[in-house]
Amino acid sequence: MLVVKVGGSAGIAYESVCTDFASIVKAGQQGVLVHGGSYETNLLSTKLGKPPRMVTSVSGYESRYTDRETLEIFEMVYCGKINKGIVERLQRQGVNAVGLSGIDGRIWEGTRKAAITVTENGKKKVLRDDNTGRVEKVNLSLIQLLLQHGFTPVLTPPAISFDGEAINVDGDRAAAMLAAALQVEKLIILSNIPGLLKDLKDESSLVPDIRLSEMEQYVGYAQGRMKKKILGAVEAIQQGVKQVVFADARVEKPITQALNGKGTVIH
Amino acid sequence: MLVVKVGGSAGIAYESVCTDFASIVKAGQQGVLVHGGSYETNLLSTKLGKPPRMVTSVSGYESRYTDRETLEIFEMVYCGKINKGIVERLQRQGVNAVGLSGIDGRIWEGTRKAAITVTENGKKKVLRDDNTGRVEKVNLSLIQLLLQHGFTPVLTPPAISFDGEAINVDGDRAAAMLAAALQVEKLIILSNIPGLLKDLKDESSLVPDIRLSEMEQYVGYAQGRMKKKILGAVEAIQQGVKQVVFADARVEKPITQALNGKGTVIH
Repeated sequence: MLVVKVGGSAGIAYESVCTDFASIVKAGQQGVLVHGGSYETNLLSTKLGKPPRMVTSVSGYESRYTDRETLEIFEMVYCGKINKGIVERLQRQGVNAVGLSGIDGRIWEGTRKAAITVTENGKKKVLRDDNTGRVEKVNLSLIQLLLQHGFTPVLTPPAISFDGEAINVDGDRAAAMLAAALQVEKLIILSNIPGLLKDLKDESSLVPDIRLSEMEQYVGYAQGRMKKKILGAVEAIQQGVKQVVFADARVEKPITQALNGKGTVIH
Repeated sequence: MLVVKVGGSAGIAYESVCTDFASIVKAGQQGVLVHGGSYETNLLSTKLGKPPRMVTSVSGYESRYTDRETLEIFEMVYCGKINKGIVERLQRQGVNAVGLSGIDGRIWEGTRKAAITVTENGKKKVLRDDNTGRVEKVNLSLIQLLLQHGFTPVLTPPAISFDGEAINVDGDRAAAMLAAALQVEKLIILSNIPGLLKDLKDESSLVPDIRLSEMEQYVGYAQGRMKKKILGAVEAIQQGVKQVVFADARVEKPITQALNGKGTVIH
């Protein structure tokens, strides 16, 4: 069993990811594909006159301020265009894929955090009416039912709050929670960079290998969205996943390459 | 077992539909909710500078010309905003809903008709690169698996072609195919009118009851989208569904009212 998360940044080669994933599944490996959609959401939000508002929490993590209107734009891109585009590609390659969000079957449950304290222009500020949260509980029954009957789940945020509200959650950390719940050996996190870089401008500065115990030496290199990827990786390994690989989604056979150790392997 | 189709025209009371559907499911009845999204798709298309292009086939049926860009807008609205909005409402009311399109698990399969002959301004014209088609085959395994395990499917177009391409299909006829495949007693088709009207401007001109054998006397009253609803109803009954009810989605308890015979009952 394998969990693959493919990010939603610019430059992702969805066709390569889907072709590689399909060949792995058709070879008999069970898999769940989790995806994002941030770049396309930014484009659509902007076109609709509602440009993205990225905010930084006081603890230094970046997220999308998600009022109800933004949540619906988010759902249109993640659950509509990208999810169904991936399912269509997999179906065309002979994989009986089923696209789902964390709301469906309450796969990903958590608490909505309606008010967040952010730092903007050096000042602390409280934002209300936010529809964001964090996955705290994974309900595996739907995913397991599908896998047992030969279907391949393709899963995307949003998640659902314990009160039944759709909430925007970080896809990397949600994938980590899923990988831990499924007790998989490996979680592959693909994005538009080759892994954790010491210098973001220099792809040869890739860190090939990190033991969990050495993590503190490396977190300093993480910037922007990489911070949450690392948080997710740490959470996954603490909960029993053996290896998390950060790898490049812009290449041919991106999953196979990651399984062969290309990228940053955290163990 | 009940199949309810709720249209996507302006004025649909989704909250009432979902509340009523949830109470029926929680009372122990199995159900599948099928939905549309045409009105919201028109709004989004227009906002994105790609206004809807409705075309009339030479046989007199209206459909949306669906190039790839339109298909993706369609998926954003149907599979993203509306599907997840309905699933969220049902989950909030204690129904373990799962939102799906006809692509997922190849639930709705058919042939893509890439070229269509239409009549525009009195002239015949062939349009190419259309991503539309008609459901010819219903693959029930995913739907039945979900129903058997206590999940409630919420299903929407698009469908998938036999070659694995997403295709825009008419939701009413697709719901009719599903109802027939599931061999349900009743198919409820809710929209923003009270049923088949002899005079569209006069809601008191409602036709309360039509036997299939008398249908020819009534088809002349059908205009616009109602034509396909009638086609779907006829197809459903010919394939074994006992009753199809066209009823109003703008009222309280719309499904219960339709089950009690309010609307146009076709049998």
